[in-house]
Formats: sequence, structure tokens, C-alpha cells
Amino acid sequence: MAMKIWVVNGPNLGLLGKREPAIYGAASLQEIMALLAQRAAALGVELHNFQSDVEGELVQYIGRAIGAADGLIINPAAYTHTSVALRDAIAATALPCVEVHLSNIFKREEFRHQSLTAPVCLGTIGGFGTFSYVLALEALVEHLRQRASGCESR
Amino acid sequence: MAMKIWVVNGPNLGLLGKREPAIYGAASLQEIMALLAQRAAALGVELHNFQSDVEGELVQYIGRAIGAADGLIINPAAYTHTSVALRDAIAATALPCVEVHLSNIFKREEFRHQSLTAPVCLGTIGGFGTFSYVLALEALVEHLRQRASGCESR
Amino acid sequence: MAMKIWVVNGPNLGLLGKREPAIYGAASLQEIMALLAQRAAALGVELHNFQSDVEGELVQYIGRAIGAADGLIINPAAYTHTSVALRDAIAATALPCVEVHLSNIFKREEFRHQSLTAPVCLGTIGGFGTFSYVLALEALVEHLRQRASGCESR
Amino acid sequence: MAMKIWVVNGPNLGLLGKREPAIYGAASLQEIMALLAQRAAALGVELHNFQSDVEGELVQYIGRAIGAADGLIINPAAYTHTSVALRDAIAATALPCVEVHLSNIFKREEFRHQSLTAPVCLGTIGGFGTFSYVLALEALVEHLRQRASGCESR
Amino acid sequence: MAMKIWVVNGPNLGLLGKREPAIYGAASLQEIMALLAQRAAALGVELHNFQSDVEGELVQYIGRAIGAADGLIINPAAYTHTSVALRDAIAATALPCVEVHLSNIFKREEFRHQSLTAPVCLGTIGGFGTFSYVLALEALVEHLRQRASGCESR
Amino acid sequence: MAMKIWVVNGPNLGLLGKREPAIYGAASLQEIMALLAQRAAALGVELHNFQSDVEGELVQYIGRAIGAADGLIINPAAYTHTSVALRDAIAATALPCVEVHLSNIFKREEFRHQSLTAPVCLGTIGGFGTFSYVLALEALVEHLRQRASGCESR
Amino acid sequence: MAMKIWVVNGPNLGLLGKREPAIYGAASLQEIMALLAQRAAALGVELHNFQSDVEGELVQYIGRAIGAADGLIINPAAYTHTSVALRDAIAATALPCVEVHLSNIFKREEFRHQSLTAPVCLGTIGGFGTFSYVLALEALVEHLRQRASGCESR
Amino acid sequence: MAMKIWVVNGPNLGLLGKREPAIYGAASLQEIMALLAQRAAALGVELHNFQSDVEGELVQYIGRAIGAADGLIINPAAYTHTSVALRDAIAATALPCVEVHLSNIFKREEFRHQSLTAPVCLGTIGGFGTFSYVLALEALVEHLRQRASGCESR
Amino acid sequence: MAMKIWVVNGPNLGLLGKREPAIYGAASLQEIMALLAQRAAALGVELHNFQSDVEGELVQYIGRAIGAADGLIINPAAYTHTSVALRDAIAATALPCVEVHLSNIFKREEFRHQSLTAPVCLGTIGGFGTFSYVLALEALVEHLRQRASGCESR
Amino acid sequence: MAMKIWVVNGPNLGLLGKREPAIYGAASLQEIMALLAQRAAALGVELHNFQSDVEGELVQYIGRAIGAADGLIINPAAYTHTSVALRDAIAATALPCVEVHLSNIFKREEFRHQSLTAPVCLGTIGGFGTFSYVLALEALVEHLRQRASGCESR
Amino acid sequence: MAMKIWVVNGPNLGLLGKREPAIYGAASLQEIMALLAQRAAALGVELHNFQSDVEGELVQYIGRAIGAADGLIINPAAYTHTSVALRDAIAATALPCVEVHLSNIFKREEFRHQSLTAPVCLGTIGGFGTFSYVLALEALVEHLRQRASGCESR
Amino acid sequence: MAMKIWVVNGPNLGLLGKREPAIYGAASLQEIMALLAQRAAALGVELHNFQSDVEGELVQYIGRAIGAADGLIINPAAYTHTSVALRDAIAATALPCVEVHLSNIFKREEFRHQSLTAPVCLGTIGGFGTFSYVLALEALVEHLRQRASGCESR
Repeated sequence: MAMKIWVVNGPNLGLLGKREPAIYGAASLQEIMALLAQRAAALGVELHNFQSDVEGELVQYIGRAIGAADGLIINPAAYTHTSVALRDAIAATALPCVEVHLSNIFKREEFRHQSLTAPVCLGTIGGFGTFSYVLALEALVEHLRQRASGCESR
Repeated sequence: MAMKIWVVNGPNLGLLGKREPAIYGAASLQEIMALLAQRAAALGVELHNFQSDVEGELVQYIGRAIGAADGLIINPAAYTHTSVALRDAIAATALPCVEVHLSNIFKREEFRHQSLTAPVCLGTIGGFGTFSYVLALEALVEHLRQRASGCESR
Repeated sequence: MAMKIWVVNGPNLGLLGKREPAIYGAASLQEIMALLAQRAAALGVELHNFQSDVEGELVQYIGRAIGAADGLIINPAAYTHTSVALRDAIAATALPCVEVHLSNIFKREEFRHQSLTAPVCLGTIGGFGTFSYVLALEALVEHLRQRASGCESR
Repeated sequence: MAMKIWVVNGPNLGLLGKREPAIYGAASLQEIMALLAQRAAALGVELHNFQSDVEGELVQYIGRAIGAADGLIINPAAYTHTSVALRDAIAATALPCVEVHLSNIFKREEFRHQSLTAPVCLGTIGGFGTFSYVLALEALVEHLRQRASGCESR
Repeated sequence: MAMKIWVVNGPNLGLLGKREPAIYGAASLQEIMALLAQRAAALGVELHNFQSDVEGELVQYIGRAIGAADGLIINPAAYTHTSVALRDAIAATALPCVEVHLSNIFKREEFRHQSLTAPVCLGTIGGFGTFSYVLALEALVEHLRQRASGCESR
Repeated sequence: MAMKIWVVNGPNLGLLGKREPAIYGAASLQEIMALLAQRAAALGVELHNFQSDVEGELVQYIGRAIGAADGLIINPAAYTHTSVALRDAIAATALPCVEVHLSNIFKREEFRHQSLTAPVCLGTIGGFGTFSYVLALEALVEHLRQRASGCESR
Repeated sequence: MAMKIWVVNGPNLGLLGKREPAIYGAASLQEIMALLAQRAAALGVELHNFQSDVEGELVQYIGRAIGAADGLIINPAAYTHTSVALRDAIAATALPCVEVHLSNIFKREEFRHQSLTAPVCLGTIGGFGTFSYVLALEALVEHLRQRASGCESR
Repeated sequence: MAMKIWVVNGPNLGLLGKREPAIYGAASLQEIMALLAQRAAALGVELHNFQSDVEGELVQYIGRAIGAADGLIINPAAYTHTSVALRDAIAATALPCVEVHLSNIFKREEFRHQSLTAPVCLGTIGGFGTFSYVLALEALVEHLRQRASGCESR
Repeated sequence: MAMKIWVVNGPNLGLLGKREPAIYGAASLQEIMALLAQRAAALGVELHNFQSDVEGELVQYIGRAIGAADGLIINPAAYTHTSVALRDAIAATALPCVEVHLSNIFKREEFRHQSLTAPVCLGTIGGFGTFSYVLALEALVEHLRQRASGCESR
Repeated sequence: MAMKIWVVNGPNLGLLGKREPAIYGAASLQEIMALLAQRAAALGVELHNFQSDVEGELVQYIGRAIGAADGLIINPAAYTHTSVALRDAIAATALPCVEVHLSNIFKREEFRHQSLTAPVCLGTIGGFGTFSYVLALEALVEHLRQRASGCESR
Repeated sequence: MAMKIWVVNGPNLGLLGKREPAIYGAASLQEIMALLAQRAAALGVELHNFQSDVEGELVQYIGRAIGAADGLIINPAAYTHTSVALRDAIAATALPCVEVHLSNIFKREEFRHQSLTAPVCLGTIGGFGTFSYVLALEALVEHLRQRASGCESR
Repeated sequence: MAMKIWVVNGPNLGLLGKREPAIYGAASLQEIMALLAQRAAALGVELHNFQSDVEGELVQYIGRAIGAADGLIINPAAYTHTSVALRDAIAATALPCVEVHLSNIFKREEFRHQSLTAPVCLGTIGGFGTFSYVLALEALVEHLRQRASGCESR
């Protein structure tokens, strides 16, 4: 049966492709998710994705993953640094989760250097633009396969 | 001509495979690097690697990459949190560099949450065990290819 | 006329009973609220309850309590530590409010030791699992009765 | 063509006029916005306004201003001090934005002295009650006119 | 056999009822403890209480509870914020302990917001005046009963 | 009788117009004050202004306002962040005072984010260049008029 | 009727005169108190004094001053910096209290610069050796006389 | 020959008696200094005093005390908390100096709890209104007499 | 004549051997002190020991060591981190003192990493269980012998 | 045409040579400036110098350097650590400025380790007594010459 | 078979005996290690020692102890406070390690009060000069013997 | 006999001239040291220099200066901010040492504002590019000459 991976996108990511395409690229979040879904299909993964600017809707979506998904990919965007609720939601699922960032948060303002969600995730990937999502997908698939085969990566 | 990528491994990583194989895996750093080199070859990348427990030797190796390498992968290990010298060395090369960690540093002691080297790197990947290196290699190759083709990922 | 008490439940509390029943108990939030309503009825109290993962919906519900409720019981969950908006909402109602926690927040991560909402509440109760709600109900009823009889507890 | 200015009102501001009119005045937010619209009309400005207690809905509204509005006036209320998401939303629009507060935040609790949104705004105005909005409107109109005439105020 | 619960009262609590009765109530600590003992009796609990202004005497009393009491209720008063010794004493007993405060410590000076003793207690109750003791008694009895019946509250 | 408003300008503001006119505008402080005086006259306000680089002279000038002025506008410039003496002087006058800044202090160095004077002012306005003074004048006049008519703005 | 002033001496002060007389003077605490009592007698003041190394005994002594003394002089010594209990005791008496130190605490280690007791005292005097007590006595007598005559010093 | 003591009064103290006499007393600084001079005369002390709102003028006056005065009394007012220059000036004179405050600085805002000048003074006296000056005079005279007689107080 | 060494044991140490013997060992503090006395006797040392849970009693005991003991061994337990009074008492004796801990305080909570007493001690030994006392005895005897022979260890 | 360099001396420097000549040397500031002027003349530099204890007068003097001087040497003394106004003044001139200190500020109190003025200076020199000025002069002349010849030192 | 204990000496310890013998003693590190080896021999312990100023060489030496040594004694000197790499190396060996210091680090600068290595050591001994090594040897031998006999000291 | 001055260059300085000559100048460290040696020869100084990226090798080189050099010039580069070992090494030599920086460290990242080595140096010079070395040489020669002639600069 196909692995089920849910991708969660946080606030302002819905604006991708709509603003300053010279800088952020011409691809909308929908297009990026579509491309990611192709890659996922090639890996035998069924991909679902969700975007919301509302912290609580992200919490709800993550909560619904219990018993439905095998793993999570999350780009919490601005909520990375402020949301204890997202942290609690991820922890509640007890699912492996990969935290993704488009930019390298360590190059930005001081308050973006800390992540409230990272400590409850498997690992983090950031700084590679939209390719960060591809890496996260591979990382999660690798982890789930190793776990299935009884030898978790460390 | 093949891309040249140098992999830099910091303190205590030479002990991999020698201690507690049940936990850290049976593969030594040499074996991991050999596997990574295979993957690199498949991607048309020429891989060099270096390990030292001595901060200054790591600084020297990185300095020698100027004009010789196309990009760097670094696992600064414990020096991530204490070495301004490594940060300066990476910045001096002006090469794209990916910071790699075996473990998820955000799950560990408070003093491991900050990285002195990350702000001068392209991006960071951590928490996926030895697979973190594979992801870093892919990320760096993707970045170099996009740069060569004139459209950097963001 | 019956006292009217509104119970406000914050993010992730909707997952109670759905996940890890061995740990969190088999009772869902609905069942807990039903039991609390029974206890309330015995005390001559009319109980309303509301759960949302969305900070702003909690703010709205609290705002509607002005002129409609005699007191509030709130379990702000993760928003305890981050929500100035909930604090302002509680303060705006000028109603007596009891802050409730299932767990003892002082036993958990450092960032959970501070409460933004507690300074605008009558008092706080935490660490007694679902029984915390029962204690909060009794505390609020006692307070309202003493206030009605002209001698507030201190 | 008329300037278009969008006014964004944050959490708990919907309660204005409903509670403690002796203190906060008898005017509801609707009435204040109506008065502001009159003033705007006199200045040849088309005014839109939006209030939400939900952080993510505010983020969405601001995101929709791209290409639709000439400038923003925002009273982030409690989210001033906690919302990186609002900050990112304002920055994403690249529109001139004026931050408004009814009260003087420097007279209040320590945690209200810092503003996460102010660094991405043109300027801030606070402490003048509902008149703060009028001043913000004038400031924004003046800024847009000077920019139009090629000499930005500083 | 009756549950044995020891109540420990810290510094300055002996002044209750003696000073400013209009504010703190006319009841002395003795009277409050007598009332609590009645309530305890009704619950089948044997209550002992002790007050001291001397930190070390409180430590000694708590130490004597090992093997003699089933649970503790403590109002550490000023020592809440300064006494590592009380914390160690409570932890040493390995008994369930409820921390009680007459006032809501979160409404008071910054240095009263942290509790050194709370992390080694079952839970905390504060802000309800003398009724805080009654709630603590109920909480502790409930906890001991559930533990006796094999299903601890959480 | 005309309202009397005193405008106080702090250190380095005497250099306005003398240095880098392309950036700071060609208008000297004298010219700006003259323009403001015109606006004031139109509002029926008698304006006095004073500039000094010397903290103590600013303190003296403010002290003389007792019994002579109806309100103050102050641009404390660098002293905003360091002068307890200016704060005490403003508080001593018990006059309504508006704090003005040419630039948005929240966009600048960390140490400029805090204001020692703002907590004793009516409100603050910053980021609108020389137009900040005009807004401050309007805000103060509005405040004095509402106070005269018995309904202070909030 | 004679004013009654109680003098409270904290930990280690009992060693005065016993150790290093070349440095601390040859006078024991008893001798100093005797001299102070003479001065008090000359001022028509009845002086009581108490020394203890035990924080709780100091708390008890202060508590007994309610209704018995007109004012307090306290040298809390090391407890100045650590005792919330002494602070609460002084506040509970609602008596005017003068805090005294033999040495200038601002010349000593950083942790001695803060005083937990000073905020609940009338004022503080420190750095004048045993003469600090004489000054405190005069200050307290002056304060009590002015209060008696209806014009408190400020 | 008469002792010469110079009294230095910092910013805003020139307003004493001019503002809010019901609160601060009807005496101007001149009157207070005149009364202090009388007391000084009775003690055989020649008193000089100086007030300035200008930090640098206070520094100059203190510098002139070298070789001219036997001791200093200083009320640095707001400069207590901000002036390294006053601290250096006092230290440069190598004269015994008593720091005086009208109010108890520990009862006020957090930033007033630290004194930059106190560490270079003999001692500090604060909280006794204008009587603080009288106590400072006595303390300084006592210190100078003991030093003259070869046995400094400690 | 025999060296005299006094051993001071702080709060909760009286519980050793009484609670959880499987963890803390079956030996009571009395038995440990008896064994230490034997070792002391073999070294020609006369040993006295004292335990109290009361900070002030420990201060008194230490004060009595002046002129009576040649050196001190202290296990301040919880007071290590909170007692300025113990620090002052040790410093007042001017005796060499060795600070002892059963556990390694650096492995425990953050607040246990700092020691208020260590800076006035000769040295510290911690982490070796009851054997820490034996090491402290040897260290102190060695120090006293070297001092007697005129060549202090460093 | 001769380079014009202005030397700015801050508070308390006017006391040099007047106090404790054994320590600070017998040379007054005037003599030091005279010697520096000789050295300057030898280098073809026209030197002006100014000393004031008044922060604002230093600000004014620096402001007047715009268009009149080629570079600045400043010894801000105590204002180094507290004056944002001096920092703003130096920055406003856009002139190269060398910060000088007689002593090594890193050897002194913690609060002297930070410099508010250094970030807007070319560089800093400290710890070499009066020779620090000579070094600063040479550094500034070298910088101005290299800039004139089109190759700035770095 | 003899216990094998490795002694690791950090930076600058090679200078012992070479500089200021009046202060640090005439013994070189070699002589001290020779004496320690004698003591070790008497205890049936085989001692190896290593000194390096290079952090990474210390890391390597410690790494080689895996499988070769029974325990470690380390004097990390300056690296105590800065080296996460040494900490990781010690932890990686999983060997009991005793941290030794010649001086009492709590008597020295603030930054020397924290130890990065102590949390991964068995215990620490400091302040007893060269005798600290003897105590460490005894402590380690005692620990290894108790562990061998199945009853670890605590 | 010629003065002997040793110049110590820290990590990454070996890259000077090799990278980005347009920015850092075309001169290699060797060329700079050669030029400095010429200047030294003219001053009658024998210059030795050493560069290493390895902290411990720098420590060793400095240690060898005892008895061999008259003074030190050190550019600790990145180790300025992290190396307690270098600080200890410099202090151990008891030689006058001048700290040099090419750039103005106060203009760079916050973590570069503090220097661990400066407190044990004579003074610091920074911000003047390679000319900083020349100034350091002059400062050190001046200091050694004044010390030789019995009048140290201050």
C-alpha cells in the first residue's frame, strides 16, 4: 500500500508566485505542490497538501493526520518561531515530521533563529528554496522505509 | 568537467562505527564517505573528504578549497556552536556550503540550538543520520546546476 | 436564576480520547464536558462550553460572554504562553475567570512556566488531569456565591 | 483615480463601544470606521476596512491588498507583540503601512513595548484614542502624495 | 484506614487574622485549619498541620512525613520563590503534594511568578483565598483514591 | 486665549538641512519650525520652539513650561534612549506631551527600540519625516480641545 | 508616651567585635545596641533589639511588632538579597521601617546590589559603619514626629 | 579651621517648591539649602551648594572641589542611573562623598534601582525627603571627624 | 596537638539512610560521620560534626568555629545555591573550608550549577557519593600540613 | 593645503595633570595637546582641539566639523558607554574618526567594555596612555593619505 | 590485571614549573605526573598521561581511550569553559572521568564558573593545587573498585 | 641589545592576499610581515612572526616567548572571541602584549564586540587595515622604552 504523506504549509505561503516572481520564482504554491506530487508518485507515495494562514486550521489539519498519514512535511513559516500550538499538534500525532524552510533562517533576524517546532520533528531542512521540499520528501521516505525494514537511520 | 565537492567532517566523527554500533550503526566514517562517493560519481561529482578533530586543521582544509572546489559540505559537529574561526573560513571561500548534522540539534541541549556556521552557509540539513549527507550532496548539486543554468533556487 | 458559566477549551484539546487512550484516558472532551455539566447542574449552574484550535475564535467566544455569562473557566492550552489576544479578551469581559491545566506546567519545558493569561484571572489550577475542571467549577461557584453574599474570598 | 487605503483591525477591537462605554467611548468600531471613511472621502481616498480576531484572516486580508490597495493602516492590537505572520504579510505586500494604537503601548506592561510589526511599517502612531486613526490616514495620504510627486518625506 | 494528609504552612501565615482582618478575613490560621480538619473528617481524612516561619523547621516536618503521611498540602508562602531546600524535602518524600497559594501569584511582582517547589508537586492551586485549601484537599483525596483504585488522573 | 504649545528639539537636530540635503531635505530646522508655526497659527495656537544639544538645557526649558505652556511636543532624538532626566522633566510638568521622531525607530538599531520618555508622554508619532511634527501638533490640539470640552480621547 | 522602636539584626552580626577587631572595631553588637539605646533614651525613645541568624526567627520577631512598636530599624545583612519572607514580614506590619547596612552594598559583589527588603521600607542608609544605626534612629524619629504632627517628610 | 562641604544637586531639583507644593512641600531648593547651611554652621561646617540640570556642569563643579573641599554630598537625581561621567568625577576627587535621594529609589521603576555613582561614594541615604540631606551632613561630618582622629568608621 | 576539623551538613542530609536505601545507600548520616571520624582519627584529626535543616543554625555553628577549629568541611546541600548568609559566615571565620557534594551538581538542574559558597572556600569536591567526604578530609589535612610547613599547595 | 584634524576630549579629561600626577603624569591636557600639535605640524597637519565636560557641547563641536575638518580624533571618556548623541554626531559628519582611550577599557568594569561610539568610527586605539593620541594621529593621517591616493587601507 | 587510567592535561599546563616557580611551585608537569604514577603504582594502577595545547589532539587522545582505559582524569584548563568537542569526546568514551582543576574556578572570573565538561564527568575536584590530581586518582580508583564489586558509590 | 618582539597571527590570516585582492589588498601575510620587519629593523627591533590556524599551536608559540621575547603583538582573529586558552597563554608570559585587528570589530556582528584576550593585553588597536600592525609595533616599542627608562606610559 502506498505511503501517505501530508504536506502542511503555513502563513503567507499562499502568496508564492503571486508577488515578485523575479525573486521568488514564477511558480505558485499549487504548481510546486503539483510537482512535488509527481515526485511523490514516482516514489510510490500518496501526497496530500494543505495551506492555511490560520494557526488553528493548521493545528486541526495536523490533528486529523492521526491514523490517516504515515508522515508529515511542514513548512510552518512565521509560526515556526511563535506557535506552541503547532508544536503540541505535531507531538500529539506521534508521526515522523520533517520541518522545511525555503530560506536559511539562520541568515535572517535573530528571532527567526529559534524554532519551537523543530524539537518535535525528525529533522529540519532549510535554505534550498523549493528544492527543500524535494529533499524533505526523500528524507521522510527514506526514514519510513528504514523503519519498515527495522533499521532506523540515525 | 566534473563538479568538485569537498566534504569536511569535524571532531569526534572519526569514532563513528567504532563505538556503540547498535546505536550509531556499524559503518565507519570511511565507509560512509565511500558510499557518498559512489552516489557522487553517479551524479558526475568528484568528491574529496577530510576529517579532523583539530579546529585549525579544518580551517586550513577549507581555506585550500578556494579555487579548487565548487562547493562544500560540512558537518562541524561540536564546533558548530563554538567556532568563529570555521565561520570565517567558510565565508572566506565564498563557496556554496551545506551544513549537515547527523542528529536534530534542536532536540538536544540548549547550547546546541545555535549555529555559528549556519549563517554563512547556503542551508542546513539535520536529523536524518547518515542520510543527511546524501541530502546535502543532492542539495548542493542542484544548487550548482541551477546557478550554472542561471536560475538559482530560492 | 441559575449561574451561567462558560468553559473555553484551547488548541489540541479536541484530540482528547482520540489519541493514546492508555495515557490520556478514554474520555473525549465531549464526555468530560458532559460530566462537568452534570456536576454543574447539581450545583445549580448552567454550563456552556466551546473548543477551538483557532486563537481568534476563542477570542470571539470570550467576547460574547459579556452580559451573557457570570464567569469563565479557560484551559488555554498552548495559547497560555503565547496569546496576548486571549489575555486582552479575558480582561475585556471583566468576568471572574479560572485558568485550568490538565498537566502541571511547572514540570514541563521552561517556556511553559510563564502564563500570559493568569495575571487577568482570578486564580489558576493545574496538574490534576480532568479533575482540574471540577476544582475550577467549585472555585468559581464559591467565588460567585461569596461575591453575591458580599464577602469575596481572598 | 482615488487612492485606495485598506484599514486592518486586530483582535478584540470588535468589542469597542460594546463594553464600558464610559471608558472606551460609546462609538463602535463600525461607527469609527464610518467617520474615518467620511474623512477619507474628503481627502479623495477610497477606504476599505476589515476586522478579525483571527490572526490568519488578517494575514489573508493583507495578502489580498497586493495590487488592490495603495497603502495600509493597521491596528494589530495584541498581535503587535506576538505575530511574526502579520509582519511577514505586511512585508510581502511592499505597500506603505502605518501602525496605529489607541493607547500608548509604552505606558503598559513590559511585553507591550516591543512591536514585531513596526519594523516593516512606514511609521507608528499611538496614544491618541480614536484620533490615532485620523492621524494615520493623514500620514499615509501625505506619504503617498509625496511619493507620487517624487519627493518622499523622511 | 484513614488517609493521612499533612498540611504545611510557611512564613508569615501565622499572622492571618491578626492583622488587617478587613482585608485578610477575621479567621486565624488555627480557625482555618480547624475548618479544613472538619472537611477532612467528612472525607475520611486525618489531617495534621504545621506552621513555621523557619525554613529548616518546615524541611524537618516534611522529612518526618516519610512513612507517616499519604500526601502533603503545602503553602510555602515567601519560600516558594527562594527555597531549594523545601523543593528537595518534598522530592525526598516521594509523596504526592499539592502547592497552595491564597493569592494569584501571577498578579504580583515578577519575582513571585516562578516557583521552585511546583515542579516537584502534583499540581498547584492559587488565587482563591482560604478556599484554595479546600480545593487542594479535594484534589489530593481524589488523586489518592484514583491511585488506590489503579487509575491515576492525568 | 490662544493655546500655547512648546516644541523641544534634541541633539543633532540643528544640523538638519546643513548636511546631506538630498537625504534629509533642504529645509533647516528653522524653516521647519517656521512652517509648523504657520500651521499652528491657522489652528489658533501660539508656538514656541527650542533646540539644544545639551541635555540639561532641554531639561531647563521643559521645566520653564510649568504654568507657561498648555502642552509639549518633543523630539528627544538620541536622548530618547538614554535620558532619565528628560523623562523626569516631562513628568514634572504634568503637561500633555507628544513624542515625535523623524525616522521609524523600530527600523533602526536594537538600542533605539526602547524609549525612556514615551511612558510619560500622551502618545508617540514616528517615521513620517518632517510631517511627524504636523501630526503631533494636530494630535496635541485635538487632545487639548477634547479635554477643554470635558471628553478626553482614548 | 515614649516612641517604641525595635531594632532587628540579621545573620552573622552576632560576630561583631569577636572577629578581626582591627577591621570591624572592638565593639560587640551588644555594646553597639547599648550605645544606641542611650541615644534613643536621649530622644525619648524606648529601644528593643533582637539578633538572630535564623531567617524565620527574624520573621517572627517582626510579626510580633504589630501593635507593639511604632517603627522598625532592620539590618537584614545577607538576607537583604535573598529573603522574600523578611520583605513580606515588614510589609505585613505596615510600620515605617529603615533599612541599615554597615558597608556600602554598591561597592561589593553584583548580587549584593539588589535589595528585596528596601522596596517595603521607608528608606535606606548604608556605608557609615556603626554610625548608620544612629542615622537610622534619627531618620525614624523624625519621620514619626512629622507624621504625628501631620506633615510627613517626602 | 572649618570643614568645607560642597553639596551638588542634579537635574530637575531646581523645580522643588515650584511645582505641586502639596506633594513636594512648599520649600524651594534654595530654602532647603539655607536650612542645611544653618545646621552646617551649628556643626562648624562651611557649606557650598550648586545645582545644575547639565551633567557636564556638575562634572566641572565636582572637579573644582579637588583641593578646595573636604567632602561632598551629592543628589545626582536622574543622573544616578545613567552618568558614568559623574562617577568618574567623584572618583577623581578622591574625596569622601555621600549620595542622597529624596525618595526611596527601590520603590520606583526597575531602572532606578541601580546606581552608577554609589560604588564610588562612602555611603548612600535615601527615602527621607529633605531630611535625607541633614542625615548626609551628619554622616559626612562624623566620617571626617573620625578620620581626623585616626579611627575611620566602618 | 591534634588538628580540629568541623564538618557541617546542610538541609535534608539528616534523611540519608532513612529513605530509599537502595538508591542512597543504607548508611545514615550518623554512620557516615562515624566512619569519617575513624579515618580522621587515623590521620590524627579530631572531628566534630553538625547537621541542621535551619540555615541560621548552620550560620551559628560556623561562627562558633572561630578560634576553635582549624578547618571546615561543608556540604551546604540546597543552601549552596541560595544562601548568602552561609557564604558570609564561612568568610567571617577566615578558616580553610572544603565544599563537598554527594552528587555532581553540574549534571543537575541549571539553578544548581552556581554556588554562592564556593568562592569563599579553598576548593570543591563533588560527585563521588559518601567518598566525597573522605577526599575532602584528605584535602583539608594536606592543606593544613603544607601551611604548617610553610609551603601551601596551589 | 594642510589636512585639518579636530581633536575632541570628553568629560573629566580637563583634570589631567591636576590630580595625582604620580599616577596620571604631570602633563596637563593643554600640554599634551601642545605636544600633539607639534607632531601634527611635523606631519603637515593643522590641529584643533576642544575639551568639554558637557555632552551637548561636544555634540555641537563635532557638528561644526562638517565642511571644516578632514578627520576627527575623539576621546569620549565616560560618554563612550552612554552617549547615543555623540554617536549620532560623529555619524552625521561622515568624517573618518579615530576613537582613543588612555586606559585599556577591557581591563575595567564590565559596563566600560561596550562602546556606543566605536561602531561609527574608523577604528579604536586604547591602553597606551597619552601615546594613544600619537598613534591615533598617525592612523588618521595614513588613512587620509591613502584615501587621497585612491587606495584605502582595510 | 591492573586498572588503566589515562590522565589528560589541557592548554598551558606544559608551562608548569617553567614560569614563576615561587608561585606555581618548582615541579614541572612531567615531575607531577611522575609522582602521580608512583602513587598509582602503589594502588596497582597503570597510569598514562598526555598533554596538549591543541583541543583536537586532546579529543583524539580521549577517543583512543575507548577499549584501552578503565577511566579518565582530565584537567581541561581553559577548554573547560569553551569546548563542546571535549565534552562530546568524554561522553563518547562512556568511561568514568574525573575533572580536575588546580585552582578553585569559582574564585575566578565569571566566565570560568561554568564547565562544559563537568556534566559528562563522574565528579569534579578543584582548588587544591597539585594535590587535586592525587584526590582525583583516589576518587577514580574507589569508584572503579566499587563498580567492580557491584556497589557504586553515589 | 635589540628588543625582541614576536608577532602572532591567528586563524584564516594565512589567506590574506590569496583571496579577493581587490578587497583585502594584494599583499600576502608574508609580504606584510616582511614590511613590518623592515620597520622593526629601523626601530632597532628584532621581529619574529608566526601564523597558525590551530589554537593550540598559537598557545605553544606564546608559551615559548617566556624568557625569549620582550613583547608580543597578537592578531587573534576569530579566536579573540572564543579562546580562554589564548588569554591564559598571554597572561602566563607576563609580557606586554598589543592586540591588533585589521577591521573595526565594533562595526561587525554582536558576538565580535567582546574580546577574551584584550583584558590581559596592554592595549588594543583595530580598524586600520595592515597599518594596525605598524601602530602596534610603535606602541609596543614606546612602552618598552618608557619602561626601560623607568616611566611607563599610562
